[in-house]
Amino acid sequence: MSASSFFKRLLKEVVHPSENLRVERQARKAVDLCRALLTEQGEFSGASLAQDVLAAYRDLPEPGVSAFFRHLIHEFSPDSNAILGAADAYRDEPSWDRLLALQQVVEPARQELFRRLNVAPGGTAALVAMRRQVLRGLREHPDWRVIDADLAHLFGSWFNRGFLQLSRIDWNTPAIVLEKLIAYEAVHQIQGWQDLHRRLEADRRCFAFFHPALPREPLIFIEVALTRGMSDAVQPLLDVRAPVAEPQKADAAIFYSITNCQDGLRGISFGNLLIKQVVQELQAELPRVGRFATLSPLPGFRNWLEGAAANPHGVARGEAAVQALQHLQTPDWHQRPELAEPLEPLLLQLAAYYLLDVKQDGEPMDAVARFHLGNGARLERLNWLADVSEQGMRRSAGVMVNYEYRLSDVEENHEAFAREHRVIASSDVRRLARAARRHLSAGQDQAPPRKEGKRRRKEAKED
Amino acid sequence: MSASSFFKRLLKEVVHPSENLRVERQARKAVDLCRALLTEQGEFSGASLAQDVLAAYRDLPEPGVSAFFRHLIHEFSPDSNAILGAADAYRDEPSWDRLLALQQVVEPARQELFRRLNVAPGGTAALVAMRRQVLRGLREHPDWRVIDADLAHLFGSWFNRGFLQLSRIDWNTPAIVLEKLIAYEAVHQIQGWQDLHRRLEADRRCFAFFHPALPREPLIFIEVALTRGMSDAVQPLLDVRAPVAEPQKADAAIFYSITNCQDGLRGISFGNLLIKQVVQELQAELPRVGRFATLSPLPGFRNWLEGAAANPHGVARGEAAVQALQHLQTPDWHQRPELAEPLEPLLLQLAAYYLLDVKQDGEPMDAVARFHLGNGARLERLNWLADVSEQGMRRSAGVMVNYEYRLSDVEENHEAFAREHRVIASSDVRRLARAARRHLSAGQDQAPPRKEGKRRRKEAKED
Amino acid sequence: MSASSFFKRLLKEVVHPSENLRVERQARKAVDLCRALLTEQGEFSGASLAQDVLAAYRDLPEPGVSAFFRHLIHEFSPDSNAILGAADAYRDEPSWDRLLALQQVVEPARQELFRRLNVAPGGTAALVAMRRQVLRGLREHPDWRVIDADLAHLFGSWFNRGFLQLSRIDWNTPAIVLEKLIAYEAVHQIQGWQDLHRRLEADRRCFAFFHPALPREPLIFIEVALTRGMSDAVQPLLDVRAPVAEPQKADAAIFYSITNCQDGLRGISFGNLLIKQVVQELQAELPRVGRFATLSPLPGFRNWLEGAAANPHGVARGEAAVQALQHLQTPDWHQRPELAEPLEPLLLQLAAYYLLDVKQDGEPMDAVARFHLGNGARLERLNWLADVSEQGMRRSAGVMVNYEYRLSDVEENHEAFAREHRVIASSDVRRLARAARRHLSAGQDQAPPRKEGKRRRKEAKED
Amino acid sequence: MSASSFFKRLLKEVVHPSENLRVERQARKAVDLCRALLTEQGEFSGASLAQDVLAAYRDLPEPGVSAFFRHLIHEFSPDSNAILGAADAYRDEPSWDRLLALQQVVEPARQELFRRLNVAPGGTAALVAMRRQVLRGLREHPDWRVIDADLAHLFGSWFNRGFLQLSRIDWNTPAIVLEKLIAYEAVHQIQGWQDLHRRLEADRRCFAFFHPALPREPLIFIEVALTRGMSDAVQPLLDVRAPVAEPQKADAAIFYSITNCQDGLRGISFGNLLIKQVVQELQAELPRVGRFATLSPLPGFRNWLEGAAANPHGVARGEAAVQALQHLQTPDWHQRPELAEPLEPLLLQLAAYYLLDVKQDGEPMDAVARFHLGNGARLERLNWLADVSEQGMRRSAGVMVNYEYRLSDVEENHEAFAREHRVIASSDVRRLARAARRHLSAGQDQAPPRKEGKRRRKEAKED
Repeated sequence: MSASSFFKRLLKEVVHPSENLRVERQARKAVDLCRALLTEQGEFSGASLAQDVLAAYRDLPEPGVSAFFRHLIHEFSPDSNAILGAADAYRDEPSWDRLLALQQVVEPARQELFRRLNVAPGGTAALVAMRRQVLRGLREHPDWRVIDADLAHLFGSWFNRGFLQLSRIDWNTPAIVLEKLIAYEAVHQIQGWQDLHRRLEADRRCFAFFHPALPREPLIFIEVALTRGMSDAVQPLLDVRAPVAEPQKADAAIFYSITNCQDGLRGISFGNLLIKQVVQELQAELPRVGRFATLSPLPGFRNWLEGAAANPHGVARGEAAVQALQHLQTPDWHQRPELAEPLEPLLLQLAAYYLLDVKQDGEPMDAVARFHLGNGARLERLNWLADVSEQGMRRSAGVMVNYEYRLSDVEENHEAFAREHRVIASSDVRRLARAARRHLSAGQDQAPPRKEGKRRRKEAKED
Repeated sequence: MSASSFFKRLLKEVVHPSENLRVERQARKAVDLCRALLTEQGEFSGASLAQDVLAAYRDLPEPGVSAFFRHLIHEFSPDSNAILGAADAYRDEPSWDRLLALQQVVEPARQELFRRLNVAPGGTAALVAMRRQVLRGLREHPDWRVIDADLAHLFGSWFNRGFLQLSRIDWNTPAIVLEKLIAYEAVHQIQGWQDLHRRLEADRRCFAFFHPALPREPLIFIEVALTRGMSDAVQPLLDVRAPVAEPQKADAAIFYSITNCQDGLRGISFGNLLIKQVVQELQAELPRVGRFATLSPLPGFRNWLEGAAANPHGVARGEAAVQALQHLQTPDWHQRPELAEPLEPLLLQLAAYYLLDVKQDGEPMDAVARFHLGNGARLERLNWLADVSEQGMRRSAGVMVNYEYRLSDVEENHEAFAREHRVIASSDVRRLARAARRHLSAGQDQAPPRKEGKRRRKEAKED
Repeated sequence: MSASSFFKRLLKEVVHPSENLRVERQARKAVDLCRALLTEQGEFSGASLAQDVLAAYRDLPEPGVSAFFRHLIHEFSPDSNAILGAADAYRDEPSWDRLLALQQVVEPARQELFRRLNVAPGGTAALVAMRRQVLRGLREHPDWRVIDADLAHLFGSWFNRGFLQLSRIDWNTPAIVLEKLIAYEAVHQIQGWQDLHRRLEADRRCFAFFHPALPREPLIFIEVALTRGMSDAVQPLLDVRAPVAEPQKADAAIFYSITNCQDGLRGISFGNLLIKQVVQELQAELPRVGRFATLSPLPGFRNWLEGAAANPHGVARGEAAVQALQHLQTPDWHQRPELAEPLEPLLLQLAAYYLLDVKQDGEPMDAVARFHLGNGARLERLNWLADVSEQGMRRSAGVMVNYEYRLSDVEENHEAFAREHRVIASSDVRRLARAARRHLSAGQDQAPPRKEGKRRRKEAKED
Repeated sequence: MSASSFFKRLLKEVVHPSENLRVERQARKAVDLCRALLTEQGEFSGASLAQDVLAAYRDLPEPGVSAFFRHLIHEFSPDSNAILGAADAYRDEPSWDRLLALQQVVEPARQELFRRLNVAPGGTAALVAMRRQVLRGLREHPDWRVIDADLAHLFGSWFNRGFLQLSRIDWNTPAIVLEKLIAYEAVHQIQGWQDLHRRLEADRRCFAFFHPALPREPLIFIEVALTRGMSDAVQPLLDVRAPVAEPQKADAAIFYSITNCQDGLRGISFGNLLIKQVVQELQAELPRVGRFATLSPLPGFRNWLEGAAANPHGVARGEAAVQALQHLQTPDWHQRPELAEPLEPLLLQLAAYYLLDVKQDGEPMDAVARFHLGNGARLERLNWLADVSEQGMRRSAGVMVNYEYRLSDVEENHEAFAREHRVIASSDVRRLARAARRHLSAGQDQAPPRKEGKRRRKEAKED
């Protein structure tokens, strides 16, 4: 909560005690409806009661929402004594029945409440929206994590990937869905309907997951360009006036954007399955397409670089290197060859190092790298000045990565990554990283030298 | 397990130790695949691994299934020590975090396993089939209730009524669905396609709930006849040669059959919501229809009657009554007026008494009565010789009930029943029950006299 | 009209002159509605007026229909004088405008009437039914061919194959369509739902053409068995208990039944296109299927044989042959080897001769042969005792033919047949025909010897 | 053909005689394919041959198209001698058979050719496009009317309203259809997707006719606003920022735009039926809507006014009136009250006169009036400054009309108009027209005074 909003609220409380009372009464009424819904045994009128709860919730002003959540936490959580009793009983005799009893008693009544709310028309969407609200308030109200845990648990079950439907999105798709792509796109913003139309032409593919209870509401979508050769720059793909190529002649499919649409489903992962199914769809439709790769940013690269450069024992030891990196501050340096050229080898080496060597909890620090490498993709190629948009320069210093999905290796790669955080990279990328290590003071990053040695040996076996 | 099958099995074990070994190895392999599926972190290959598990499970011979379930119980249940540790931690400091930790630790890994199996194509159907197998073996293997609890918990979430789709079934429905109605119908057996066709004519309605993950597989369905006046006999409704009436002229909708289709979903209740939605559909389509009632059997009536009659202090005290009841043993008594006529008043009284006064745990002993009264229906009318089929005579002595759904009263009735097990009945039915009580020795049934008095007072207020 | 129905009608006319008057008035009213529909200029109320006409027509008793058609013929045909005037004008100056004027004046107003009737809900179906009635009465009322010509002309346009939709029929198809297959099947009767289900199993395919204005009403359908090797007998294909084969292992697709469903569309041909599209569908779905052939009856074979045998200069000259053919009169001769065996070579030779040499207007006399050969199929094989059903024995003496569709040759074959009535047959079949010719007195059939010579030379070039 | 395009063509012919030869050869080839398609008897390969013809036609450069059409006219028209022979035969004996023979012989082979072309995938769309090309060239090539007549005849049959499907268009409609609305809209141009979205909000309805063979291609569409009271100005309806009203509260449905989409279907009328069906749809959905009216321009009003004003005996006799009308030349006069106010009574009177009295061939000269009055609508109200867009001012002097569709009167109105060109107008509008007549010199328009008298009497009976 910002200072000013805190002040406003304070003011409100001071000035309008009766208003507070009214809001509290409103929240109370919503909670009472919840209680009625839960005690209702026959459930014959469940749907309309659930509808009433959701309407009451939606009508709550912001302070009412807090009060409502407070009640949900304190009145619909499991009973401490009951839990301890069941635990003691289980300790005395750890039988199946006592375990089942314990399981039941630790489950908050909230979960059953949410299950019953789901029966209302539009109930699922309302609950997803409720979790978005919970997540947004989490920093201010850490208690709300209790509600979050219940919703996340339910959503993990409801949005099981076995219930999701993969749909192709194209110009035949209803406008009501298409406008959501425009709104949601998180990687390369869609500039209106013309831009969207270009991204759905014959040389593109777009797929999304849908859930039957959220019709016309994409959960996640991916944009693919069918190209000759693996794309090494994203601006050509985003150019609305680019001529439409013949899909039959493409030999590569480039995943250039993947967007999670629903904040309220954060943490329920769909991306890996989506990529796998899309690769299968494309293989079936276009047998000539042999390569499947992303064209991805390194969203944390510049940030890391600046931190590392500021470090006296940091990134670049040579005078020349330090000087070169300073050019990154110059606006539009990439359009000035005299600045850009000396940067190319240096930055690509540092990017390779960033992806291969900079870790957090043993995994690559870069979130995009973590996602694709975790899926079993291979770090195939680094591309210079591949995204010269404002955001591309600011976050990735213009560099982009091709993560390649080779279906034959994907499971093995995935396991290697899952078990040992081993990153599979092409020899070119590994060579760049090795060069980078020479610019760097040893031991500055989390990766201890011993592991380095181990990894290096492993890498040697590949390619 | 019957004696002979036990013997066969024993024989097998003696004769073919190597066979046993082979089966055990097969079960082991299936379990290992389960473990792989669970430890697989990135889940990129989850769907194909899940498919492998389900194939391995399906291929298991019967003893292999037992072994498989045994492993599921012992290897995928929560760890006792971990539970006790988490419980102690919670006792020391009953914080939200420690509660969440305890919740996590008591949840069996099986639940996550089942969630991941669901990702396979046809996974949901396979899990429903697995629970059917578990339920069937429960008597022989009481341990399996642990697995049942996990599946029931998941299904309660997955088959939340918010995810179900109500569909009208008629002659435009795909044959693959229609043949399932023929197979599943549990109340009045469908005698082939001609019978089915008659039940889907213009003067009938049939609705079913479907789940998106089980396409073309009804979960529950209900058959409705559109009639003039409330039907008092079921044979005319089942007559395939009955002329088709004009639906626009009907003023009543008679629910004459409701069938739960999926053994594997036992205990996940759909019926009450189905009835409510169907009433709403019919009101929208046919505004002239004003009455909504069932034509239902009393499946436990004859059974109870025989028990009670055998009781020396039992059902019928008068000589004449005892004699009359003996006629029920005569085959085809209902076709002989000299036997049937004297029975009519007596049996109807006893039926009313059976429905209103005979209780189990405070609720009506009759399962059908419990269901409809629990939904808020009203016990409207008893019908003499209303089902003269072999089954109708054997179970209900030919009597049938109209439970009427008056939407305006349904919630109130439902609540009265839910809170106080109060049964709402028409004055005619109550009069019959009062008459019956005079034939009966007081106190013979579970209902204590005190309650009787209370109920009688309440009943007096109605009508 | 049969004598008795004629007599009944006569009687009616004598007894009920007032009845006649009533019917005539009813027909008059229908015609007046037609006139209103035609003169209605703005067409705003066309649909409801058209509906009125069709209702009035449907309500007409049989004699009223005749009166109605009589009026249609005499009041909605083009005006003689107008035609002759337009013809004279065109003769004077054969300009485009005068040609257009003549074209307009010769078109009966009936065609516009039918076009306007089509606007009513269900109009197309009603007009197809009307033509069925016209065709059925054609023998008794030759005048009706005028109406038939108009409807046929319109249907030729409306049922243009560009408007037809090919749909696969299987167990997912609505029952309302499936029951029509049972009703319509004209080649091998379908014995109820179980038989139908077997014909729609995984090793079968069934396709139909539909028209958007006749939903759920197949125009023509074809049944296909997926087999290993080209089927040589139909009973195995019709056996409801035959095990279901794996479609992936099939190398041949056998078209064993093709049925035109709508009498009212007689002469509007769909069959050739249906076969071609079905072959393409099957090739796409099952690349391992390499042969596409029919298993067809010779519906006119026995008939021709008997005529020819009765001819003193006829079919079989040798004593032995004549004697053998007499066995065909013996019931169940095919189950008695001592009768059947000697017949085999003789009958196959005669069947080959019947198909290759017996002509009508230069084309094969056998309608089925004419259809498939006209489509470009190849007369591939004759099969002995391939259809031993009552009908198969009575019409085809148990013999069946495989007409094979080789897509690479189909156009050439078709053209050869279309231009010169040249029949493409395998060398086996040609050999059989040559052998037959030796049994036969020359010149007995329509095919003159000169042509024989020409054909023989051509045949020699093949295989 | 403009002078410059003629010159360009001439130049081409002079400079590239070989080019001409090539084009002519290309057209010849297309025609030869047509001939093959027509003589192909079995039609087995019809679809692919038809596809070839259409491809060849599409590839023709413009001069090739002319050559192609020339061949179509001269080689596929009926034979003069055959026609005259058949006409003579019919004269000799005017029997049904000879009439049928004559009908056949006058039908150009082109019609059968077009029917066969329709079999190609996309054939119908290609033929509609072909007719558009024919219509566009008609002025330069009057001969092409022969082709036009054939296509119009076929389309009249194929696009029979019985085959059209009414679909609601809204934000759930595929983008590929919506973008066509933007492109086609002919009355009030759609300014991009935001404007379109506003026109499809909850307080609007949009319906279109589709033909099954032209999927996703609207033939005609209508835009409706749901309002309280009958709209008297169009700008509020076109305002993208106008708040969305609740449809349940509307009591009027205003048809503010109706657009024919397909030039190639010119003359095949759909509009009247569309309005009738839309009225029925709206009545079913929104029973509170009681008025159905258009808000229509008077597209020929200004034009007529200027012609009439220029006439010395013309429109306005009084000095003041003449002066007022001159203000119409002043840009933005409608925003200057001192100019607009004096014009209001005068212009409304003239508009009423224009709609009621100014005729062409006995019907209203104004095309929009002719359409709606011909459909049976009633000229209900004239609205001052109702369309102040550039086009609205230029064509209609800002005036708009409400034509009201009262279903109860529509047939009677329609007939009155169809038979006697009688215009049904409200008393207000008639009063305005009477006032106008006083400003005008008698006899200046086509309507003779006698008729005036007759109409005036009739009008008196109404209201």
